[in-house]
Parts: sequence; structure tokens; C-alpha cells
Amino acid sequence: MARSTQVQLVSRPQGWPTADDVRTVHVDLPDLAEGEVRVENEFVSVDPYMRGRMSDARSYVAPYELGETMTGAAVGRVVASRSDAVSEGDLVIHEMGWRDVAQGDASRFRVVQPIDGVPSSAYLGALGMTGFTAYAGLLHVARMQEGDTVFVSGAAGAVGSMVGQIASLKGAGRVVGSAGSDEKVAALTERYRYDAGFSYRSGDVTEMLREAAPDGIDVYFDNVGGDHLEAALDSFNDGGRAALCGAISQYNSTEKASGPGNMANIVTRRLTLQGFIVGYHQEHMPAFLEEMGGWVAAGDVRLDETVVDGIENTFDAFLGLMRGENTGKMVVRV
Amino acid sequence: MARSTQVQLVSRPQGWPTADDVRTVHVDLPDLAEGEVRVENEFVSVDPYMRGRMSDARSYVAPYELGETMTGAAVGRVVASRSDAVSEGDLVIHEMGWRDVAQGDASRFRVVQPIDGVPSSAYLGALGMTGFTAYAGLLHVARMQEGDTVFVSGAAGAVGSMVGQIASLKGAGRVVGSAGSDEKVAALTERYRYDAGFSYRSGDVTEMLREAAPDGIDVYFDNVGGDHLEAALDSFNDGGRAALCGAISQYNSTEKASGPGNMANIVTRRLTLQGFIVGYHQEHMPAFLEEMGGWVAAGDVRLDETVVDGIENTFDAFLGLMRGENTGKMVVRV
Repeated sequence: MARSTQVQLVSRPQGWPTADDVRTVHVDLPDLAEGEVRVENEFVSVDPYMRGRMSDARSYVAPYELGETMTGAAVGRVVASRSDAVSEGDLVIHEMGWRDVAQGDASRFRVVQPIDGVPSSAYLGALGMTGFTAYAGLLHVARMQEGDTVFVSGAAGAVGSMVGQIASLKGAGRVVGSAGSDEKVAALTERYRYDAGFSYRSGDVTEMLREAAPDGIDVYFDNVGGDHLEAALDSFNDGGRAALCGAISQYNSTEKASGPGNMANIVTRRLTLQGFIVGYHQEHMPAFLEEMGGWVAAGDVRLDETVVDGIENTFDAFLGLMRGENTGKMVVRV
Repeated sequence: MARSTQVQLVSRPQGWPTADDVRTVHVDLPDLAEGEVRVENEFVSVDPYMRGRMSDARSYVAPYELGETMTGAAVGRVVASRSDAVSEGDLVIHEMGWRDVAQGDASRFRVVQPIDGVPSSAYLGALGMTGFTAYAGLLHVARMQEGDTVFVSGAAGAVGSMVGQIASLKGAGRVVGSAGSDEKVAALTERYRYDAGFSYRSGDVTEMLREAAPDGIDVYFDNVGGDHLEAALDSFNDGGRAALCGAISQYNSTEKASGPGNMANIVTRRLTLQGFIVGYHQEHMPAFLEEMGGWVAAGDVRLDETVVDGIENTFDAFLGLMRGENTGKMVVRV
């Protein structure tokens, strides 16, 4: 009989989540039924959007159920199959989340092709929702054009490190990023194709952005919200576009954040601010897989990850993500 | 010899403009040169955007020059012409602004056709920049669809009274407006095809909007900024679109206005906020003229105006506009 270790949400955090909000359980799995497969996960994803689902506020996805195992992206190998669609040894991705062994109907798993020299975790990062979020947000929401100056907040994070690379590969004129430490800022230019970077902890974001992009910005990819959006509104050229992807700076705040003080620039400079959820841009998925697959296979994209070992440490990895301890994609190695 | 009375800007207002910021001058006009025409204005327009041009802050149009006559839309009759393109008696519109008699090269004047029973001032309102702003902003920036619930701030003003009517004529499901007095609110439903309205002075805008649009809003047309935008962000359905046209509530403020406290909804509900300047949407002008011309000729659109008499009172009319004393379009009758 197989066993699965799983992490479940047991209470809705107020402000920062604590260890009391989750529990680890060990589940004895039944024998496979007809049409089912069993998968040993290799990597499990932790993502900022999960914080939103821990709350029961109105949002774009249903809240997590209390007492249920946390769902989310994971990648693993099929170890047993009673389905014709999936074979033992197949690499698969699925949404069954924070568990070491996943089992269910074959329709819940999608077979992907391993790429030589690329770890399977890439299907959670560059080739997964993370990379697609960067791609769709930059090219289809913010509609980046060749030659544009692009500003990215959370630039060394999972999505941000992809945005910088995609912007550069697609011909941006200048790519500027903000991150939370000197080490991350160094990674921006050394590893993620950014032209310039600054640490938002080292001064006034508006002033640092003005210095880093003295001719203004055309595109802003927002991962953090707050004063970064105000800085972008200050530096936007006429007709600028912002793709608003997340506001990790506010996810654990129990106070209402006040908005930018320069909203009037939206009118006078004809700006567009668009919030987006990547799931609503699926029509671009084939183009993404082809283009990103090519870049990854050619070694043009850095697949940096911050890896935490052990399914039992998944919640700690999530907290680390919330604190910004990752450079690149944060994953748990099972 | 002809004389022209003109109003000129002589200093840049800090906060609310005062009479000291302008002067009235009387100019003796030279004889017409070859290719020139002379026009006696019938109506001169005062518009909120003019406040922005009185300042020298970065904006989408150049600041007014100090010591020069205020420019802007006007409509009048040709009283003398030395051009083949324009004949005595023609009705023309132009941008020479706050003066009773305008004179210059014929290329600065555009001949328009009078419509039976419609005052020439309609070319400053419904058939002019005001109507086009409402049309382009509602249909092409906010991309209103049939059945949408639409919210409009400054709903009884020049642009707002047009937005309500266009929304209704184009099949909106429900149109809700906010205005600054009970009299204006009554006009919304009685005259401008709104389904519901409220006075923003009578309570909390967020709560009043929730009550007026209990199923949420899909489109917001923003003429005022400030707490109305926060209310809209609170009531938006997923995928909602805002056309940001102006922020008259802040034009005369010397303090920095803080932005909405619920910007995070832009991401979670996939909202789009787009500032616009109507001059960048000229490609829709032919469709506008055809559609609006048809509505005006058929009597489907109310052409309400607040009329101030006398070119020497133009600045007072402008101040009245800033204070919200107009219902419908504010014009000066020369």
C-alpha cells in the first residue's frame, strides 16, 4: 500500500500565515481503480497567488477548502498506471499540489516531454505557469514593442526573472528591474538580461527609477504593487502600458493600502493599467510553448531556482517566498 | 475697422484661478489679407482641460502662453472673407478661443452645416469635442458592450450627460450616474436616459454605488477622479473597464491626492483602467459624426446647455464650470 504525505490548510491566516494554519497528514492510498494513475512528484510549486486562496475574500479563484490538501502545480513521474493514456515512466504535470504522491484519474495529469539537460522543475517555471505569466503579461497585456523601455518589479523573482529575459530576447530597448537585495540586483544584469537594476530597500523607488530610466518607461510589469506602481506612474512616457500581475507587498497586510498619489498621470499621459490572470490568456499558450521551448532548448534562458528539500518543508518554502528569499522560481524537491 | 474683445492669461494659478490670472483686452483688427476670413463668434466653449493648460506642469498639450489669448473651441459666422474656401454667412468652428471676433487664415476655420432647430452651440457640445469624448471613451476606450452596467461620474456635466445618453442608445443594460446636487440627479433620469443616479454629496460614494448597481458594474466613465474611482474599483465585475477622462475634483488642488485604497482589485478582477485624450482617437470621428448626427437630427439626444452671456464673462463661466454650476455643456453666448 502506498502512502502520501500532504500539507493541508486548517485555518485562514490573518496577515502573515503561521505554522498553525497548516497541518501535515499521511494518507494511505487505495489501490488504483480503472483509468487511474499514481505519480511520485519530483517538484512541487509554491506561488504567491496561493496566499490569496488561503483567504475567503472575493477573488478570481475559489478559496482553498479548510481541511483539504493545498492544490497547485507539481511535476512527477508515473509509477503505476491503469490508463491507456499514460504510461509508467511518463513525466507529467498536474494541479494536485502539496503532496509527495498524487493519485487520481488520468485526465488530471498531462504528459510532457523531458528536455535533455533541463530539470523537470522547468515545467513549473520557465515552461510552466510562471514563464507563461511573464510571456502573456509582457507581450499581450502590456503589448511590449521592440525598442520599448521596460520596468519590472520583483525582477529577480520567479516571474520577474522571466520577464527580463523575454523582454531582452524580444528586442526591448532597455530593461530595468527592482529587487530586494544587492545579491538579487547583481543577478538582474548578470543573469536575467536586465540592463540596469536597483534595490528598492536602498532609497526612494521613484527617484531610483528616474535615474535608471532617464528617458522614461513605456512598459511596467508589476509584481509587487505599492510604491513601485507610483514610481512607474511617475516615469511613464505617453501611451505607457502596465501589466499588473500581483501585489505581493500587500498580500499579508491587514491594513488597507492607499493607492498611488499620481493617478492623474493616467489621464494626462494616456496610460493603460491592466490587471491580468494568466488563465484568461490561454489562446497564446501554443505560441508560448513554441517560443519558450526554443529558447530553453537553445540555452538562451536561465532557469534559476531556489530549491527547498522535502515535502514536509513546503509551507516553510511558501513563507520564504512571501519574504522574498527566492531568486528565480521557488520549488520544493520531493 | 473691426475690434475684438479677448481674454488672456497673465499668470499661472496656484490652486483655484482668480480674476487676477486673466485680463480682458480690446484689439483693433487689421484689414483682411488675401486668404483670410473674419468670424463673429456665436458661442465660445469653456472646458475642464483648460485648467491643465493654465499650469506649466507636464501635460498632453502645451501650456497656454502668458499674455496670449486663451485658445479653445468656438463657433461663429463668417462676416468677411478673402478666401475661396469660405463664404460670407458660413457657419464655422475653430480653436481661436476666448474672443468675440476671430480673424485669420481660412485654413483655421472649418465650415459646418447648420441643422434645422439645432443651435450652433451643438457644435461645441453634442456634435463637438464634448460629444466625441463621450462617444470615443465609452465605446472605444471602455469598450461598452450591449447589456453592460455603466457607471458615470460627473454624470450631469457636458461629457457625462452625453455618456448616459449614448450608453442607453447603444444598449447598455443599466446606466448609473453620480452628480453634485439633487437637481442634477433628477436630470439624470428625467433628461439623460440614466436608470439611476445619486448625489455624491449625500453619503459615501462606495455605498451609494453598491445600492444603485447591486449586480456590479462593467464600465466606468470617470470625469472626476478621487473617491469615485475607489467606488468603481469596489463595484467592478470581473473584466471591467474604466475610461479615465478627467479628474476635475483634483484640478484645483494644491495637495497631492492619495489614490484608491483598493488598487489590488485591478489584478484580482482583471480590470483595465485607461486614460485617454480624445485627440488620439480621430479614426472614430467619421462614425461619430454619422451616428451622433443621426441622433441629433432625430431629436434622440438632449442638447442641454448652461449659457453665460457676454464674452467679458468667459472667465466667470469657466470658474462656474470648475465649481460644477453647469448642467450639460457650459458655453458663453457672445
